[in-house]
Amino acid sequence: MMSRIVSWMAVGLLGAVPSWARAPADEPPRGTIVDVPFVSTVLRDNRIGLDPERAIKVLLPPGYARSERRYPVVYFLHNAWWSPRQMFEDGRAQRLIERGFAERVVREFIFVVADYTGPTTGSLYENSPVSGRWIDYTVDEVVPLIDAKYRTLARRESRAVVGDFFGGRGALKLAMMKADEFSVAYAMHPVATGAGDIPWSSLEIDWPRMHAAKSFGELGGLGRTQIFWAIHQAFAPNVAKAPCFCDFYTEMKDGKPAYDPDRAVAMQESFLLDESLTESAAALRTMRGLALDWGRFDTTQAHVISNRQFSRKLEDLGVEHEAEEYRGDPWNRTWTEDGRFAKRVLPFLEKHLTAE
Amino acid sequence: MMSRIVSWMAVGLLGAVPSWARAPADEPPRGTIVDVPFVSTVLRDNRIGLDPERAIKVLLPPGYARSERRYPVVYFLHNAWWSPRQMFEDGRAQRLIERGFAERVVREFIFVVADYTGPTTGSLYENSPVSGRWIDYTVDEVVPLIDAKYRTLARRESRAVVGDFFGGRGALKLAMMKADEFSVAYAMHPVATGAGDIPWSSLEIDWPRMHAAKSFGELGGLGRTQIFWAIHQAFAPNVAKAPCFCDFYTEMKDGKPAYDPDRAVAMQESFLLDESLTESAAALRTMRGLALDWGRFDTTQAHVISNRQFSRKLEDLGVEHEAEEYRGDPWNRTWTEDGRFAKRVLPFLEKHLTAE
Amino acid sequence: MMSRIVSWMAVGLLGAVPSWARAPADEPPRGTIVDVPFVSTVLRDNRIGLDPERAIKVLLPPGYARSERRYPVVYFLHNAWWSPRQMFEDGRAQRLIERGFAERVVREFIFVVADYTGPTTGSLYENSPVSGRWIDYTVDEVVPLIDAKYRTLARRESRAVVGDFFGGRGALKLAMMKADEFSVAYAMHPVATGAGDIPWSSLEIDWPRMHAAKSFGELGGLGRTQIFWAIHQAFAPNVAKAPCFCDFYTEMKDGKPAYDPDRAVAMQESFLLDESLTESAAALRTMRGLALDWGRFDTTQAHVISNRQFSRKLEDLGVEHEAEEYRGDPWNRTWTEDGRFAKRVLPFLEKHLTAE
Amino acid sequence: MMSRIVSWMAVGLLGAVPSWARAPADEPPRGTIVDVPFVSTVLRDNRIGLDPERAIKVLLPPGYARSERRYPVVYFLHNAWWSPRQMFEDGRAQRLIERGFAERVVREFIFVVADYTGPTTGSLYENSPVSGRWIDYTVDEVVPLIDAKYRTLARRESRAVVGDFFGGRGALKLAMMKADEFSVAYAMHPVATGAGDIPWSSLEIDWPRMHAAKSFGELGGLGRTQIFWAIHQAFAPNVAKAPCFCDFYTEMKDGKPAYDPDRAVAMQESFLLDESLTESAAALRTMRGLALDWGRFDTTQAHVISNRQFSRKLEDLGVEHEAEEYRGDPWNRTWTEDGRFAKRVLPFLEKHLTAE
Repeated sequence: MMSRIVSWMAVGLLGAVPSWARAPADEPPRGTIVDVPFVSTVLRDNRIGLDPERAIKVLLPPGYARSERRYPVVYFLHNAWWSPRQMFEDGRAQRLIERGFAERVVREFIFVVADYTGPTTGSLYENSPVSGRWIDYTVDEVVPLIDAKYRTLARRESRAVVGDFFGGRGALKLAMMKADEFSVAYAMHPVATGAGDIPWSSLEIDWPRMHAAKSFGELGGLGRTQIFWAIHQAFAPNVAKAPCFCDFYTEMKDGKPAYDPDRAVAMQESFLLDESLTESAAALRTMRGLALDWGRFDTTQAHVISNRQFSRKLEDLGVEHEAEEYRGDPWNRTWTEDGRFAKRVLPFLEKHLTAE
Repeated sequence: MMSRIVSWMAVGLLGAVPSWARAPADEPPRGTIVDVPFVSTVLRDNRIGLDPERAIKVLLPPGYARSERRYPVVYFLHNAWWSPRQMFEDGRAQRLIERGFAERVVREFIFVVADYTGPTTGSLYENSPVSGRWIDYTVDEVVPLIDAKYRTLARRESRAVVGDFFGGRGALKLAMMKADEFSVAYAMHPVATGAGDIPWSSLEIDWPRMHAAKSFGELGGLGRTQIFWAIHQAFAPNVAKAPCFCDFYTEMKDGKPAYDPDRAVAMQESFLLDESLTESAAALRTMRGLALDWGRFDTTQAHVISNRQFSRKLEDLGVEHEAEEYRGDPWNRTWTEDGRFAKRVLPFLEKHLTAE
Repeated sequence: MMSRIVSWMAVGLLGAVPSWARAPADEPPRGTIVDVPFVSTVLRDNRIGLDPERAIKVLLPPGYARSERRYPVVYFLHNAWWSPRQMFEDGRAQRLIERGFAERVVREFIFVVADYTGPTTGSLYENSPVSGRWIDYTVDEVVPLIDAKYRTLARRESRAVVGDFFGGRGALKLAMMKADEFSVAYAMHPVATGAGDIPWSSLEIDWPRMHAAKSFGELGGLGRTQIFWAIHQAFAPNVAKAPCFCDFYTEMKDGKPAYDPDRAVAMQESFLLDESLTESAAALRTMRGLALDWGRFDTTQAHVISNRQFSRKLEDLGVEHEAEEYRGDPWNRTWTEDGRFAKRVLPFLEKHLTAE
Repeated sequence: MMSRIVSWMAVGLLGAVPSWARAPADEPPRGTIVDVPFVSTVLRDNRIGLDPERAIKVLLPPGYARSERRYPVVYFLHNAWWSPRQMFEDGRAQRLIERGFAERVVREFIFVVADYTGPTTGSLYENSPVSGRWIDYTVDEVVPLIDAKYRTLARRESRAVVGDFFGGRGALKLAMMKADEFSVAYAMHPVATGAGDIPWSSLEIDWPRMHAAKSFGELGGLGRTQIFWAIHQAFAPNVAKAPCFCDFYTEMKDGKPAYDPDRAVAMQESFLLDESLTESAAALRTMRGLALDWGRFDTTQAHVISNRQFSRKLEDLGVEHEAEEYRGDPWNRTWTEDGRFAKRVLPFLEKHLTAE
């Protein structure tokens, strides 16, 4: 603890006036956004036309340039249909992080937003021979790249993963599979944590259109139908079956959709995180910090119900964690001044991530 | 179908006036209750003092004595804390069955209530070296006994299992494990189908008293604590650990309860039916009829929630079934004139059980 | 009860062979579908271009022509986007009713499908100066018309109302408001019985498009947005505010949607049935039969949750009723051979509707 | 905002080293617990033997003695079966508050724990002629007393109410009824916010014992039965009906419990907060800060479900609020170092309570 004080002293105690005693005119010191172009080898292995050139972005903290220190690293997993560029475009995320540093809510870290975009939804945080081995890309390529290029604390104690929505699924998945690489995970409104209350045979998917489609793009405007094209590529891949390269859990028979329960259940076991939670319990118990949160008013209540059950199951498995359900929907309380990222994620990182 | 008509003709069409056109004075023809004492070999194998002498009761249908026919058999699994004697004591169940026969709601069957009583709760429909191998007792002893003593249709197509509460668990368990013996199962308000919404570490169990107790009886009046003594004997048995002969999922450490997640989860996998549902899917798909129902107003809402989820999972697994949630609690709509047994179970048996 | 037998005798006991003893070749006697054109006065009062010419359809039971009897009447309230023509088009409903008569599941009744169509969704079973006074139309015009034209038992004891989805809402609404006219109500998968779990500020409604639209038609393809145009006309009418003639619960302010809680809550009080349930309790307690049922797997779980709560509230209010939640979605278990209409609605009518 | 800095300066910026940079050896400055005996006039008006002598306790902040400042006041409403003495007995609450002051999580306030004990459960935060007018006692006696004796900021902007369990109900009730007195309310795991999922006719209450009892004490060990004795006195009082002085919602008729829905519903309207929420909306919208939170794993899930619905209804009513559901039960996350009081309540007070 004393060494923590000393390290703070080293950074300079200019900011010793408590945050809420500072006039709003105070602009917190700015970090630096760096583009880190990278050509992936792992992602070449796909059937959907993924571009191996990745546009990774990194936010270096304000003190980085003038110090010799090594920093913990927070890997942010953006949602499907999103990108590193969009993460920084409106400046909100950056501003919240900088303010968190300035107000001593959290000590400085390097914030990495790797590129999980693609021609369909982008990564659903899978390892698929069809839509990309995104878990491997993250652990085998992105993390070593960042550790090589920047002054990082290159160890699990100082490595966190944070994500929202599908990226929240990614954060939990990495904790479950790669707890030797990351010791802190925060999933913001994760999805696909469980089956919810609607059986898959009742999901509103337009199977005739799904089977008639030649490409993801053709299913534009069909909502769940289009997303399930990508979900099948990720979690029910079959490289031999063009054009989707997957085994649909409902085939067409005599012009009518025919539900295949064995396929559906096999796909659920791969897609839904609670299905493999028991096997991951030992790994998850080694986490320094594990959290998920979610907005109560998600119109897809299956997300909400699944997250409640996921937390109950973590509890049964003896996995220490936080699991707050808040007033809000998946989007409206996340990146605001008083939102979940500023008020929940940053203090959580401070509490669990080792900065020395 | 014609043969069905013929067989009805054989019984005689005296009752051709529709049921609701009959004056209430009409007393339906009476069946005959027979005591079938039996000494079990299977149940000798236990550590809790089970009496191998079993007081099985059988209701032979009104037409049995005057015919040469063979009949389908319905095995009724009574709840814990209940007995064959109590099943017939107030005459309600018998009267509903006889009326169902008379009103042609269902063709005649032999109704067997085997003896699942014991010195603790009675059977929870387990196979346990400590509290009894009740599944084996049912399939290896009771069914052959009945087939030997009575003119039964001795095959799965004509054999149904029905139970309520813990007996409902039993009916589902037999369908999952012994679909080669039974082809029709109806679970009335089954329990232990899933984990519900409360983690086991939060269950209101008095662990100090549990560990201090020398016997089940000592825990009298402690509700859930006492029941979990029996549940441990059934689903976490350990013949080497007197006096309970089980591995409690919470031990006492330094005078304080210490939750053991590995034990809890192992016990859940054995106790909670949804945990092995996927493996049972193929068997369940062979059932001619599978149903569960439950009252919405059970004050232990975990039962209700688990049954909803159980039905959702059956649906995902492609298992044909019925699953009605009704207005009522576990007890107040079951054995009434218009209750679940008369209005739902009997027609279900008629629909799915082969009587010729 | 004896008089019941006698009346059955009068009809002739040709059908005395029990239903399940009859070969499938047996075609049940056919009823007669009659078109009953009618020009409504009540519905002239509207702002959305309702056609006062109504295409009511009536199914007279097989015995009607050859008897002098008077019959009970079942009024069926079809769903929005549906019509009397569609109700009979595929013959399913008619066949199920005729089979129910033939198999003595229910005694003969006159089945009336009044015309609730319109240029938007059709009736939502409201009394609105904008979209029509459909409750008044039903009670003040349709019922007297049918009683005048046909040999009905013209009294509440012999008058039932049944509906599905929005028509289910209608059936409950009529029971709540007009228990002096109808004594039996069965709501099949009713909607709008309560607020569910999503606040109205989170509903996925495209408010800019709503406010920009000149007509219902313009909102085609926008799902909930379009439906809420009609819901506003029905439950937040304002004859002075073209083109929708309603007070939207979210206005546009400075180009952004601004939620108005007072309007939202006022509209909920009118639209959601549970809001006025307490005031309707005394009336509902006079019903001879009241039932609602619903499919568990409705992808809009708010319907399911609201119906559960509605039943709980009826119970608290001491209102006798049935409330079954079944495996299925709102559509796939209703009109099948073994579906809710055949197996639940018809016996319910037999039990509660007076036929003599 | 500048004035806020100045006021902090006035207190002295000794604590400018951020909290987490301080060695654990640092003991935060101690406040002073003061006994404030008080004889209530309001509480004389009761039929259950309430002692008008009240043992109020006040925690004065560390800086109180050496300053001339006026302080905001936080009124804490303890749970039923609890007392001011117990609140301070183990020192946990005091220590968390003092640490919160020292770490600048929240500026100093006066912490008042008025005495809500009684011979039955203690206050349920009602105004009842039988069990006490606790709302009036709080507002008309306790608040003026504290304002008279101590240097308070005697206005709503600087007055908060916080409570747990039944005290949580109290905090919400005061916000709903007395928003002119309090502008900040935080309800920790409040109960009685709604009806939940179990109808009152199904609640496990031993009515024969209830009616046979001569006093609250006789019902000892009967759990819910005993509590409902007190609930009736609070919310269904009848001064003419000894010994309970209430109208039970279930009477005994011919030796059997007979549910009276009119009484039940009238009592719910008084007891359950959501029943009067719409009428309170205007008042609640004037609150500077309103929050409730609750543990997901309360074994009485009706509490959890009701709180979720309560938040949904607040949202519909346009009432700004926070509503977090956390991993935990009602007790195990509240008063720990990292618990709800330290990490959620104190920052909430800092954010919304005016300290100048």
